[in-house]
Amino acid sequence: MKKLSLTLLITCSCIAAFAQDFSDKITLVIHGGAGTITRANMSPEREKAYREGLDLALQKGYEVLKKGGTSVQAVEAAIHVMEDSPLFNAGKGAVFTNEGKNELDAAIMEGKTLKAGAVAGVTTIKNPISAAIAVMDQSVHVMMAGKGAEQFAKEKGLEIVDPSYFYTEARYKALERAKAQEKTELDHNAKEENGGNGGKGGNGGKGEKANGPFVPSSPSSFKKEPKTGYHSVDDLIFTEGKKFGTVGCVALDKYGNLAAGTSTGGMTNKRYGRIGDAPIIGAGTYANNATCAVSATGHGEYFIRSVVAHDISALMEYKGLSLKDAANEVVMKKLVERGGEGGIIAVDRNGNVAMPFNSEGMYRGYIKSDGKSEILIYKD
Amino acid sequence: MKKLSLTLLITCSCIAAFAQDFSDKITLVIHGGAGTITRANMSPEREKAYREGLDLALQKGYEVLKKGGTSVQAVEAAIHVMEDSPLFNAGKGAVFTNEGKNELDAAIMEGKTLKAGAVAGVTTIKNPISAAIAVMDQSVHVMMAGKGAEQFAKEKGLEIVDPSYFYTEARYKALERAKAQEKTELDHNAKEENGGNGGKGGNGGKGEKANGPFVPSSPSSFKKEPKTGYHSVDDLIFTEGKKFGTVGCVALDKYGNLAAGTSTGGMTNKRYGRIGDAPIIGAGTYANNATCAVSATGHGEYFIRSVVAHDISALMEYKGLSLKDAANEVVMKKLVERGGEGGIIAVDRNGNVAMPFNSEGMYRGYIKSDGKSEILIYKD
Repeated sequence: MKKLSLTLLITCSCIAAFAQDFSDKITLVIHGGAGTITRANMSPEREKAYREGLDLALQKGYEVLKKGGTSVQAVEAAIHVMEDSPLFNAGKGAVFTNEGKNELDAAIMEGKTLKAGAVAGVTTIKNPISAAIAVMDQSVHVMMAGKGAEQFAKEKGLEIVDPSYFYTEARYKALERAKAQEKTELDHNAKEENGGNGGKGGNGGKGEKANGPFVPSSPSSFKKEPKTGYHSVDDLIFTEGKKFGTVGCVALDKYGNLAAGTSTGGMTNKRYGRIGDAPIIGAGTYANNATCAVSATGHGEYFIRSVVAHDISALMEYKGLSLKDAANEVVMKKLVERGGEGGIIAVDRNGNVAMPFNSEGMYRGYIKSDGKSEILIYKD
Repeated sequence: MKKLSLTLLITCSCIAAFAQDFSDKITLVIHGGAGTITRANMSPEREKAYREGLDLALQKGYEVLKKGGTSVQAVEAAIHVMEDSPLFNAGKGAVFTNEGKNELDAAIMEGKTLKAGAVAGVTTIKNPISAAIAVMDQSVHVMMAGKGAEQFAKEKGLEIVDPSYFYTEARYKALERAKAQEKTELDHNAKEENGGNGGKGGNGGKGEKANGPFVPSSPSSFKKEPKTGYHSVDDLIFTEGKKFGTVGCVALDKYGNLAAGTSTGGMTNKRYGRIGDAPIIGAGTYANNATCAVSATGHGEYFIRSVVAHDISALMEYKGLSLKDAANEVVMKKLVERGGEGGIIAVDRNGNVAMPFNSEGMYRGYIKSDGKSEILIYKD
């Protein structure tokens, strides 16, 4: 009898542990890119616009979690807000490639199952994060690129837009500035290549070609942004300085499941079908219920080579580091030593949040189960 | 004076340690794919052909190392042999996509600098591994895809071929068999999707579309393979059963530097611009002088989700596991639990070799500094 009671007790404890309710731990963290974002080069109007955008993303994601939605659904909702806003380099508002196109990348990963999905180099999918989720949930593949990914998204009923949808005047001007600067640099420097992807800036291409006559992909269909009270939206988009625009979200839902998602337009003036870290599982995006969920933003090449997101997870799993220590070890130490600028957001299964970055600023914020949120932009 | 001697002694020791000669440790390991490769379904002629191909790759790579070449150069030389051979699913001999194309992926990583390069979905580059090396050495990017990657390769003077170069009759027939089997499966199963990338097989696409009329991309330019004594080369290509064709090489050079490279045609009948693990740094390819160099072959989706190559490195770095234990932990335990079939090859800085696989067979071999080599195919 005593043995039976003990067995029952153990069984009940196991079931309780299995069905543990994480309602008081639900957490959502977002980022909207990192780089040279300082108080000195930010106007009050711009700061207000970015804070509003970030807040809306937090609220939309939180709403999903509060209603009992999954972490993947919450990540999707939060990222949709940033993809649909011209302020962020993802979806509408994505930067331009050297050819004057907007090529988008996105990835999602689910911590419970380690299932993942990613799309790279797509030009017609309104919300790339949703395409990544479709790849995860409705295909046997993890990563799809280019026209194939677009065909898949179309077949799955995702919203397809004309490439001109992604045009914003501010990003287009940023491309023109990048090209002009590149030309100036080349005029002063006969050495066109920097000999490997350890270097910063540059483009790895031929100067002459890179600076040839520029024709936007479909100029006639470019739409002007609506004017706001004091500024056009284009005036508010922050494109000064070095900026690694990417948006991302990590979340812990009431079922105790983690998820991470990232979406981006990549680097202004990028060439040759370049793919950054955002859609690379393990580099820009990773989630594992055993450790944490991570989304990165930064100089993608360095983040790929350092397998940043998985490295943070591995430091927790194999070295027993806390989320904070693991994130700092990778972002503030390893990446700094290697010259990799940027940051990450992360959450673990206890709802602990980490948002380290080694650049001058990073748009970031989090919201906890009680609805209290914080939005930050600068270093201090 | 005593102090000065001590200082000199320490300085000399440091220089000696820095310039340590690894000549007696040089090692090169290769794989030519994993899957249902058993004695029962292998003819003596086929086995001979594969052994000869693997041996040539080992010898070419070894030659580079022996002459004082770098691990990257050795990896390139060994992979060229397998890319140029129709026997392996990489370069010439790559499998066909659902659309009847050959879309190739490749990656390289250098353990000393953590520099890396990758190309995905290329159709005209004769040796994709060389394109990956060009991306690593001659661009600021790590990963390039599709037409952009091809343009880059062309600008860098790599050999460009007509897509028909990659045609082999055996692979083409394998595509036809895959399509026929898919049609049969669909006829018996109204459920077209398997609900996420945790499943095996299937295609994630629409059955009707997938089984529509098939027209090879450029049938008129398809070349017949030359006949050998008793068989045509096409007869020797092994396409039966489930096979995760990929080729890879890892090496340790006399300077103590590790490198890893992987090249593949992906999965027969793949759709939607699918990218597998081969070109994903951290998944199918990873090298770090602090730990090891790894190249994987297997069901790519599982390898991406498990960040296989970096996970082996992390287990060594953070948990202090030996190369063998780390490789076994990931391939024989984690991947098996998750349903991920395949294997990896790896080498550490002491020249230790690991070649675990959880499939029925894996084409593999290694060669050590004394020129002694071993080539293996089956489980035992």
